[in-house]
Amino acid sequence: MQLTLDELARLVGGTVSGDGATLIRGVNGLGEAGPGEIAFLANPKYAPLLATTKAAAVIVADGTAVSLPAIRVKNPDLAFARAAERLGGDAWRPAPGVHPSAAVAPSARIGKDVSIGAFTVVEDGASVGDGTVLHPQVYVGAGARIGPGCLLWPQSVVRERCELGARVILHCGAVVGSDGFGYATEGGVHHKIPQLGIVILEDDVELGANTTVDRARFGRTVIGKGTKIDNLVQIAHNVSTGQGCLVAAQAGVSGSTRLGSYVVLGGQAGLAGHLELGDRAVVTAQSGVGKDVAPGVMMSGEHAVETRRHFREKAALARLPEALQELRRLRQEVLELRKKLGG
Amino acid sequence: MQLTLDELARLVGGTVSGDGATLIRGVNGLGEAGPGEIAFLANPKYAPLLATTKAAAVIVADGTAVSLPAIRVKNPDLAFARAAERLGGDAWRPAPGVHPSAAVAPSARIGKDVSIGAFTVVEDGASVGDGTVLHPQVYVGAGARIGPGCLLWPQSVVRERCELGARVILHCGAVVGSDGFGYATEGGVHHKIPQLGIVILEDDVELGANTTVDRARFGRTVIGKGTKIDNLVQIAHNVSTGQGCLVAAQAGVSGSTRLGSYVVLGGQAGLAGHLELGDRAVVTAQSGVGKDVAPGVMMSGEHAVETRRHFREKAALARLPEALQELRRLRQEVLELRKKLGG
Amino acid sequence: MQLTLDELARLVGGTVSGDGATLIRGVNGLGEAGPGEIAFLANPKYAPLLATTKAAAVIVADGTAVSLPAIRVKNPDLAFARAAERLGGDAWRPAPGVHPSAAVAPSARIGKDVSIGAFTVVEDGASVGDGTVLHPQVYVGAGARIGPGCLLWPQSVVRERCELGARVILHCGAVVGSDGFGYATEGGVHHKIPQLGIVILEDDVELGANTTVDRARFGRTVIGKGTKIDNLVQIAHNVSTGQGCLVAAQAGVSGSTRLGSYVVLGGQAGLAGHLELGDRAVVTAQSGVGKDVAPGVMMSGEHAVETRRHFREKAALARLPEALQELRRLRQEVLELRKKLGG
Repeated sequence: MQLTLDELARLVGGTVSGDGATLIRGVNGLGEAGPGEIAFLANPKYAPLLATTKAAAVIVADGTAVSLPAIRVKNPDLAFARAAERLGGDAWRPAPGVHPSAAVAPSARIGKDVSIGAFTVVEDGASVGDGTVLHPQVYVGAGARIGPGCLLWPQSVVRERCELGARVILHCGAVVGSDGFGYATEGGVHHKIPQLGIVILEDDVELGANTTVDRARFGRTVIGKGTKIDNLVQIAHNVSTGQGCLVAAQAGVSGSTRLGSYVVLGGQAGLAGHLELGDRAVVTAQSGVGKDVAPGVMMSGEHAVETRRHFREKAALARLPEALQELRRLRQEVLELRKKLGG
Repeated sequence: MQLTLDELARLVGGTVSGDGATLIRGVNGLGEAGPGEIAFLANPKYAPLLATTKAAAVIVADGTAVSLPAIRVKNPDLAFARAAERLGGDAWRPAPGVHPSAAVAPSARIGKDVSIGAFTVVEDGASVGDGTVLHPQVYVGAGARIGPGCLLWPQSVVRERCELGARVILHCGAVVGSDGFGYATEGGVHHKIPQLGIVILEDDVELGANTTVDRARFGRTVIGKGTKIDNLVQIAHNVSTGQGCLVAAQAGVSGSTRLGSYVVLGGQAGLAGHLELGDRAVVTAQSGVGKDVAPGVMMSGEHAVETRRHFREKAALARLPEALQELRRLRQEVLELRKKLGG
Repeated sequence: MQLTLDELARLVGGTVSGDGATLIRGVNGLGEAGPGEIAFLANPKYAPLLATTKAAAVIVADGTAVSLPAIRVKNPDLAFARAAERLGGDAWRPAPGVHPSAAVAPSARIGKDVSIGAFTVVEDGASVGDGTVLHPQVYVGAGARIGPGCLLWPQSVVRERCELGARVILHCGAVVGSDGFGYATEGGVHHKIPQLGIVILEDDVELGANTTVDRARFGRTVIGKGTKIDNLVQIAHNVSTGQGCLVAAQAGVSGSTRLGSYVVLGGQAGLAGHLELGDRAVVTAQSGVGKDVAPGVMMSGEHAVETRRHFREKAALARLPEALQELRRLRQEVLELRKKLGG
């Protein structure tokens, strides 16, 4: 597979500067690319690499100065993603059909063009939509419903009755539908509260490796359409998110908290339970949120406050050791003034 | 299965207000329940839902004002858990017996009424107690001992020689008995320190999805009776806990730290190694504890101090930016006073 | 297997005090050891146990006062590790050869003296080096290369095309080569950016249970020779580390960040993306680093600063509530002085 720069520009919706006949056979990073490869610049931090890259061409934002053959676009990340899909080679997928070693219950409904890998289990009454790939060693519980075009990597788990929409991706070790953490304590004994609900992952959701999403106590834990969740994230029972949220690695959301649409959680951020975060709220990395967040507000810090306020406090804290010395000096001066005044 | 409200009240130990003949066929949340379902109110935050719920009846704390048919109890959470166990339907479990695809070593001892799912491995000399369920794709290492009435969800792992008491629950992806993290460094090389010990999970312990408990360097890592641990928690080598501890998601306990009984760790809390936490100590979410904690004390913050002190510091920090301005003004005034006094 | 204390001292490179003919048959901790066992003292916190231990002998640092038969060495941790390797019994490993239930592709190249356990999958074109052990339920993706002498515990995963050097250890549930977290957002839709690169784990790397290392967007995510990573750690795409780094449990490293050699990350520490940490930099537990760190510098805190500065700020914060009271008193006194002066 190779394309001219002109052809690639049409594909990604950009304009060419330099030689449009340049042949492109692959994609790579600015630092790694060689002859025949196209690279891209999205983060200005890497602009100096434009001078030294061995790439044949580069995808840049409109207005970037560049001497190489280039495609200029509004969103270099997106354009590069499209180029990579075309030129990056196919992702590995198991052969179509059911591997002879897989344990698929007779009552399971398997769609067309499904791949089911070795040692994968599909329990009673589960269904798997058309074109879905279940890699080896996957577990699909009884009555679970996996939509069409999904991709479940090895050792991902969907427990009984949980539901995945279309084009959902589960990375290795992701667990959908584990029990919520709930006990009723009496006389020093923690009695387990049955977790009777399910998890729903709407269309185009992606869960990272070893991420866990607990089933609801009753009703549903819901991850909204197009929400993307990174590795090692914890989503507790009865949480719901709107569309298009982004949750970075190792973040945690406690039970019954509700996120609006396009909410962003930074890495290792933590949310207490029973909160509401409005649309487009942002929680920065490692921050801990203990109360509701209005739409569009960005929160930061250990007991998070608005980010601007947080950094004002942080800046004040950085000056505090010296301020306390100043306070001592002032106290001394006031004492001396008082003496002079016969105080 | 259906019960009258009167019958259900006897089952959960409560008193009825309203029509005791109301028929109850299922359980659900206040927001989700419909005709024939009983809901409950434990968190006062959701009291407004009492006015709008479509539930047929509700379980409430003694003294709660409610116009629906209701069961009044001391502990609505516990009463609802019992109602749910009776009316919530059976949890999924694999058929009794050993699935033909499972790899069970001839030397393994398998109790009565055990279920062993597809592709599950039970290695040499391991034992599995009566009535225990090993879901598909579980791993039980050589010489491991699983007690009676345990429930190991798909893809949970118990490594060699580790021991589980009665009624232990392991959620998907939980790992019991991985090597502790220990190296002896010399000449820039980290030499692995053999981890020769085991893990003991006492009766009624529950480990969440993808939680890891490391085997001891020698001796035992011990999780005490009735301790409940949420998802993605790290328990390092040689840790021990007393009875009935509660550890929320993504918390971490470093090596050789010892927890008393009924200790509570909030989500993402972290404990340094070689500490002692007394009975009923509490560490709030995201806090980091670097020294011993006396019984009953609650600790908070980045380098945790007693929670009351922590919030006093936090409140002071919130006033700090303005206090620094005030300090500057005072300095100016003192300078002017000094001038007036010919200072 | 038993050795005299003299023989063991030669093995670990130490000098004997007390009866060199003492017979040693096993190793154990000071608190757990009994007759015939040797213990060790590395952490001075446990020195009081020297008086009560039932061990037959003990390994201590040169200069430690001890009345038991003892081996004196420079590094008791390392000496004990060597003693444990000799006397601690062999670790469990599956029988050599390929288990009949394993799914090994005909095109896979399997070295000599390899063990492959039940239900393990080795896909097309993968290679497994001499003497490597793949426990049951392991997944090795298409074209992956596993070096010689590696140890992959149950349910560890190496996705397609990733490469492991010699003597690499993967603990249960570790995932190598999951997709990096990258999307190009346009019109409210997060378009997945293909993750075309691989992961390279160099010789002697060890990854803890349920740790995740994402494949590069393009090029390589690299974990350098001899680096040891604990449980539940997240390593994002395009990260690289030098040799001999130590990463404690639940730490997270964001995309494209580069660590030098011998960098140490404490538990639950977090690093932002696109950073450089110099050789021997240290980030203490739970700290969050948002900018480059020079070689040898130790960083601490929520928005980490140099550790010394961090603790100075923390100490100032601890005095802040009282300092604010003092500030109020001073303000009052200045007002009174001003009045006296007719101000």
